[in-house]
Amino acid sequence: MTESRDLILDHASELYLEDGLDGFSMRKLARRVGVTAPALYRHFESRDALLMELIRESAQTMLAYLGRALAGTSPMDRLRRAGAAYLDFALDHPRYFLLYASLCERLDPETMEAEVGEGVESVARFWEDRVRECLQTGAFRPGTPDEIGLTLWTHAYGFVSLYLGGALGLSEDEVRGAYMASCIRILNGIAAPGALPHDTPAPGVPSGNPAADLLHETSTP
Amino acid sequence: MTESRDLILDHASELYLEDGLDGFSMRKLARRVGVTAPALYRHFESRDALLMELIRESAQTMLAYLGRALAGTSPMDRLRRAGAAYLDFALDHPRYFLLYASLCERLDPETMEAEVGEGVESVARFWEDRVRECLQTGAFRPGTPDEIGLTLWTHAYGFVSLYLGGALGLSEDEVRGAYMASCIRILNGIAAPGALPHDTPAPGVPSGNPAADLLHETSTP
Repeated sequence: MTESRDLILDHASELYLEDGLDGFSMRKLARRVGVTAPALYRHFESRDALLMELIRESAQTMLAYLGRALAGTSPMDRLRRAGAAYLDFALDHPRYFLLYASLCERLDPETMEAEVGEGVESVARFWEDRVRECLQTGAFRPGTPDEIGLTLWTHAYGFVSLYLGGALGLSEDEVRGAYMASCIRILNGIAAPGALPHDTPAPGVPSGNPAADLLHETSTP
Repeated sequence: MTESRDLILDHASELYLEDGLDGFSMRKLARRVGVTAPALYRHFESRDALLMELIRESAQTMLAYLGRALAGTSPMDRLRRAGAAYLDFALDHPRYFLLYASLCERLDPETMEAEVGEGVESVARFWEDRVRECLQTGAFRPGTPDEIGLTLWTHAYGFVSLYLGGALGLSEDEVRGAYMASCIRILNGIAAPGALPHDTPAPGVPSGNPAADLLHETSTP
């Protein structure tokens, strides 16, 4: 029972990414899974309920990755680890990454509120907390959590989605280094002067980059 | 003749965005346009030729917008104007924006090289030139054009595609201000100390942001 439920979700995420919300039907999905439509309805009461479940699963999975970043030893270190965890999540679960932003916005927020709002809100709150604690401890220049969060999110999302779409011409080995170097470059524009550890450029990072050593786990115990 | 060619391209970009590359067929397209498949082939010799034309049109249109930025009075001003032009292009031609990165990478580069490589290369070269002149005049901290360009591109792409996907919850009026403020935040991490004009925060931009006035056309004649 559980296995076939996972299989349905797996095919469902694939179908959604191929055909979009408008092209997503339970009939098409049943054909893909190799079962009858009524068999699908034994697991999910409606198309929307199934799509909601995809959001819930994506949010829960993302949160499990992000949560590891809380072991970081300072607000900035937790933010850095969260940025890395976001990439790890996307590389391990590219479909969840790709459907999350798209699907959250396309479904009726009223319905979503009741059904999966909690997971989605937890993800948003996780990032707000990371930015807010950097602001409160003076690690960031003054700004609002919303504005700074938007800059961090759009960069990370753009980088990861261009990579997953094949547009960056980077291998999976290369993407981690390039992504973290780019995140650090962004943080340089947001961090308070002196809030980032050193001025030692790391390999592949331009000199004069005060956040270079954040690239390395060695800066944290 | 020209009109129906434009109509075909219009429907083609819509179809591509809905059904992806795999779901794109000349038969489906003909049905949408309301003509027979042979009628399509009078305009485009193959499905790939038509898709190539979409890339060529997108690249040419984007380049027309970007080119206006060359009227800027300094490397940094041209870069700022180019960032704004990129958003203008995306808002005016969302389908071209959305299909460009996706389609460029999915078609055979060998074929593309011959057919539309010039437009795509011109767009890439335009951005390289903007970054390189900022580096050469000392407006940027040391770095490689590739790395810095990647940070600028991924942020701008992420911001615009999340906006177009409806994920940012911003109106078109709001998006311009929020986008430019976010670009300026990014430039703060890349610019050499003192290379950005003032330290006066603009409305909606955190104080301590030395690039705030770049938001305003008034800083250029």
